[in-house]
Amino acid sequence: MISIGIVGGTGYTGVELLRLLAAHPQADVRAITSRKDAGTRVADMFPSLRGRYDLAFVEPAAAHLDQCDVVFFATPHGVAMAQARELLAADVRIIDLAADFRLADPAMFERWYKMPHACPDLLEEAVYGIPEINREAIRKARIVGNPGCYPTAVQLGFLPLIEAGLVDTQHLIADCKSGVSGAGRKAEMNLIFPEAADNFAAYALKGHRHLPEIVQGLQRASRDPVKLVFTPHLTPIIRGILATLYAPLSDPSVDLQTLYEKRYQDEPFVDVMPAGSLPDTRSVRASNMLRLAVHRPPDSDQALVIAVEDNLVKGAAGQAIQNMNLMFGLPEATGLGALPVLP
Amino acid sequence: MISIGIVGGTGYTGVELLRLLAAHPQADVRAITSRKDAGTRVADMFPSLRGRYDLAFVEPAAAHLDQCDVVFFATPHGVAMAQARELLAADVRIIDLAADFRLADPAMFERWYKMPHACPDLLEEAVYGIPEINREAIRKARIVGNPGCYPTAVQLGFLPLIEAGLVDTQHLIADCKSGVSGAGRKAEMNLIFPEAADNFAAYALKGHRHLPEIVQGLQRASRDPVKLVFTPHLTPIIRGILATLYAPLSDPSVDLQTLYEKRYQDEPFVDVMPAGSLPDTRSVRASNMLRLAVHRPPDSDQALVIAVEDNLVKGAAGQAIQNMNLMFGLPEATGLGALPVLP
Amino acid sequence: MISIGIVGGTGYTGVELLRLLAAHPQADVRAITSRKDAGTRVADMFPSLRGRYDLAFVEPAAAHLDQCDVVFFATPHGVAMAQARELLAADVRIIDLAADFRLADPAMFERWYKMPHACPDLLEEAVYGIPEINREAIRKARIVGNPGCYPTAVQLGFLPLIEAGLVDTQHLIADCKSGVSGAGRKAEMNLIFPEAADNFAAYALKGHRHLPEIVQGLQRASRDPVKLVFTPHLTPIIRGILATLYAPLSDPSVDLQTLYEKRYQDEPFVDVMPAGSLPDTRSVRASNMLRLAVHRPPDSDQALVIAVEDNLVKGAAGQAIQNMNLMFGLPEATGLGALPVLP
Amino acid sequence: MISIGIVGGTGYTGVELLRLLAAHPQADVRAITSRKDAGTRVADMFPSLRGRYDLAFVEPAAAHLDQCDVVFFATPHGVAMAQARELLAADVRIIDLAADFRLADPAMFERWYKMPHACPDLLEEAVYGIPEINREAIRKARIVGNPGCYPTAVQLGFLPLIEAGLVDTQHLIADCKSGVSGAGRKAEMNLIFPEAADNFAAYALKGHRHLPEIVQGLQRASRDPVKLVFTPHLTPIIRGILATLYAPLSDPSVDLQTLYEKRYQDEPFVDVMPAGSLPDTRSVRASNMLRLAVHRPPDSDQALVIAVEDNLVKGAAGQAIQNMNLMFGLPEATGLGALPVLP
Repeated sequence: MISIGIVGGTGYTGVELLRLLAAHPQADVRAITSRKDAGTRVADMFPSLRGRYDLAFVEPAAAHLDQCDVVFFATPHGVAMAQARELLAADVRIIDLAADFRLADPAMFERWYKMPHACPDLLEEAVYGIPEINREAIRKARIVGNPGCYPTAVQLGFLPLIEAGLVDTQHLIADCKSGVSGAGRKAEMNLIFPEAADNFAAYALKGHRHLPEIVQGLQRASRDPVKLVFTPHLTPIIRGILATLYAPLSDPSVDLQTLYEKRYQDEPFVDVMPAGSLPDTRSVRASNMLRLAVHRPPDSDQALVIAVEDNLVKGAAGQAIQNMNLMFGLPEATGLGALPVLP
Repeated sequence: MISIGIVGGTGYTGVELLRLLAAHPQADVRAITSRKDAGTRVADMFPSLRGRYDLAFVEPAAAHLDQCDVVFFATPHGVAMAQARELLAADVRIIDLAADFRLADPAMFERWYKMPHACPDLLEEAVYGIPEINREAIRKARIVGNPGCYPTAVQLGFLPLIEAGLVDTQHLIADCKSGVSGAGRKAEMNLIFPEAADNFAAYALKGHRHLPEIVQGLQRASRDPVKLVFTPHLTPIIRGILATLYAPLSDPSVDLQTLYEKRYQDEPFVDVMPAGSLPDTRSVRASNMLRLAVHRPPDSDQALVIAVEDNLVKGAAGQAIQNMNLMFGLPEATGLGALPVLP
Repeated sequence: MISIGIVGGTGYTGVELLRLLAAHPQADVRAITSRKDAGTRVADMFPSLRGRYDLAFVEPAAAHLDQCDVVFFATPHGVAMAQARELLAADVRIIDLAADFRLADPAMFERWYKMPHACPDLLEEAVYGIPEINREAIRKARIVGNPGCYPTAVQLGFLPLIEAGLVDTQHLIADCKSGVSGAGRKAEMNLIFPEAADNFAAYALKGHRHLPEIVQGLQRASRDPVKLVFTPHLTPIIRGILATLYAPLSDPSVDLQTLYEKRYQDEPFVDVMPAGSLPDTRSVRASNMLRLAVHRPPDSDQALVIAVEDNLVKGAAGQAIQNMNLMFGLPEATGLGALPVLP
Repeated sequence: MISIGIVGGTGYTGVELLRLLAAHPQADVRAITSRKDAGTRVADMFPSLRGRYDLAFVEPAAAHLDQCDVVFFATPHGVAMAQARELLAADVRIIDLAADFRLADPAMFERWYKMPHACPDLLEEAVYGIPEINREAIRKARIVGNPGCYPTAVQLGFLPLIEAGLVDTQHLIADCKSGVSGAGRKAEMNLIFPEAADNFAAYALKGHRHLPEIVQGLQRASRDPVKLVFTPHLTPIIRGILATLYAPLSDPSVDLQTLYEKRYQDEPFVDVMPAGSLPDTRSVRASNMLRLAVHRPPDSDQALVIAVEDNLVKGAAGQAIQNMNLMFGLPEATGLGALPVLP
């Protein structure tokens, strides 16, 4: 059994970790922290967990995280880096679902997250947690920076094209649509039902924090410089991201379907759908699967890729568990086999 | 392994059976029928099943249902009773998710379903499939009439009061609200998104087919005649039923909380919430749990019960699998342990 | 032209007043106040108003409300009563969309709203603003207590039965369902989209503030004491209330359809639908119409009434304008003629 | 008064014409046809119209359309062209909300709509009905081809850039999102609530019929050949289109905000929002306004335009009435002044 601590359990990634770990045969969740709600039982806040979790939220100091095998940080940015050194010293592995260990360049972190990085030295050993890209490094990692929800979909969607050198990497467009849970469990006016329901809008057009993370990932796979227009939109669904990706093809004659199928043929959580398919977000709802389809729009030199994922699973908690499985030598899909919920 | 056939797999209860059975360690789905879509692979119609089910829909005649251990009918009313005799002769057990085996009185069936009953003699041995009421009979049953979605919530909600003889059974009211999947997977105008979204309405006020089923169940538990006003409403959610139940108390001094907790203390799928709780449909979404809370409205002699369930799980496919587990001597909760999906 | 001030314009009733008054040929909105957002242009906060309103929110002190003909209070409870005396002295009429002038008994107000009433003497002259009940008194009123959203639907739904003395008024049940805008424009966790969408729940079962308001209104129409169970639910729609009303008939032979049609035959904003109708909330969306239908459930001695309204229009801002029209001698329907928005 | 006939009144554009024309001081709707529902009163099918319309649907032959001043076709493609010649002979003007008179080239019509054009000669005189482009021609037109919903938003969004010759017209991308009413009032499986709610998907990637219409319009404004990737998506809202438009700038130094403001400065129904704005669909819900904002994504040579409209109003029935106003010499905004419904 893996002894697990969760820091910051009252947000959507925290409760999703609890939901998924309940189905994991090797997971033993020992502690879950919340400063604000210490003393409250998790099943009182989230009645969906009644009968399964006896835990109450505890103060971080009382959580004995140093006795865990692994600690998940389901916290705002900046929390994991403040505790990382101490946990590593106690031989605890770290999976941060926030951004502290995603960007390799501390200056880039500071520019986008408006805070100095607390442990730039640890950034060097931290591994960016997309198994489909970094599987071997993740197995050996002590710290995993679990990717953002948009970056997972956009990188896995573009990757085969970029690795193969088939597109003009300076004119990439990612037009992305996210469900509202992507904004977190926050009492904000623009998120309340009468504002967000029956409505559709773009946001963060001056620069979303996931932009540098995506560009970093694509750049690692590319010989040429990468430029990306990234346009996030909010759509009135609870869970789900759909990324519509455009890339100008340098060689329009290539067989994209085969390219994608080969790239992901052994991946348990990336499903390349048949040519002509139209992936929808509900086909992955509540599951760790990312589905994608590659298209050639009529009368155009562009490749068009549609990628869908559940932002809370493959885009957050599910991928974190996939990373944990790798770090602890378990079969990668352990505990992640539940089918999507449809309808 | 239990060898399973599913008749009528293209509706919501059919695909839900497939989703749930994929997590059942003893289930081996051998055949799934559809006249209209024979030849189509189930994963082509429901991409959420990709990678897990290799099956294609087959014509009923080609399904070799007589070689199964159990056949689920996820069909319109009237189909199961036409095939029941033959399957029983082949020693196959039957779980009908439609209404053919729910009403004990064939005249009542004919009145509400506008068709003669094909095998009134089998009605006598058929068992009404609410384990919390008929557990022992279900274990030995060859035919289970799996309850309707509303009847499950309403009966389990009223039952402790009625069994204890605490209420005026002639003035019961069940004000029920159902998600749209309760209407089935049907291309009907009143169900399309622009009609059903951002809208709330009552329906079937002249008499819903679940009314005689509920009354039959309550009557069995009651010494006195039962009269019920049953008002179904459609609410713009995908899954979920919430039943608000009103019953005039004959003795207002009774401790209802204790009554309910005792009645359901050993039930794995009925959760009596603490006094004052407000069960919501999402707290059971995609799970087999029914949660309820009992209240005493201010300045009133009524008992008020709120019961919630997922209409496709505890209200249909999940309860059917719970029944199957009983019929085949498995632990009752086998394969049904997934936590609700929240948010 | 009627010179109008609005106190507290940043909530849903405030912006709805602006939307509706833009179509009113005699309305001249002079000032709109907001302490928090003073200086912000209303069209910057609500882009739907761009091009129509040049106003900015102002501090109450700078609003010159004493120069208006009428002031609407679209504020939390307690604000109107603090300013009422001064405005009346300046010959300004008051329409309070909060609760300060709804309950005739100051002790009742204090019990339910947890604050002393600032001007109990003015309560005596304040008129409860349901035109279908108090039309003549409203014409002469200086202060109108505009009704709550639920109370409008529930009272107009029950009224014909109670006025005619046809029901047992001690066993009334109002099972009500409201859209989320009824909770106001507030950044609260339980209202955000991922919590409120695809979910259905009851709330305030220990006693909702609209209960005494409803009972007061029904009691005025009844010879006998009134007891009511009032169960509010939250449904994932933006606007709309549907009230399902149950009343035991003392004489089951009465012609309810005719009773209702006669009672409301001259009302411009109450539509008694044909026998058997099923009013839905979208049939009144964004309009001042209340529609209702009266039913007799099978095998029961109850009357069942379904009433629908838009909680922000007939349940708030529209009814307030209807009251204003009466107070200023205009045709009652002036400016309120827009048809419901469907789909 | 303008005497009006509507052919095909049971779809969403038909009922929206009725809703909007009820607020038009010069509109006299004389007849509304429906083969299937002849004899049914419109207010029985659409209770939102109760009390305002006494009309019943009639057979086309009984509608005396030749006595109308103008006939709106709210029909499937192919109906208007079959009746056009006869109506014109009777001096009746025609506004077709379907595609019969949108494409100037009959071969193009036949290729995309899979039927021969019934009156290619009339195509020559038909005017494409976007007032912001063709105002003067519309005033004199006998036949107006009312634009598609997507084409209105995409053309008005791209137009200032293309007219000014500022972009590479061979690499345009229109990533569009539509509410479900855009698919029409049709009982189709993929449109029912449990399929379309809480879901997001692209569709028609092999070529949507609005593509040639958009390209035709943009080409007319462009010196250079136009190539467009057009990606429509379905989002779970009832009404509304949001178009996210990408165009590579040939001169990145140009002041786009001023360009757009100047182009549309006198337009009553196009609102260029301030720099940095994020138009959302609800800001135009149920109104004839199209709002747009122009952005420069960080580190990119692209122009990014966001345009929103209500697909049933500015994208269909509202624009049709705007065209009618022009054709009959009325002020262009007559009857179209209602503010958007928010929330």
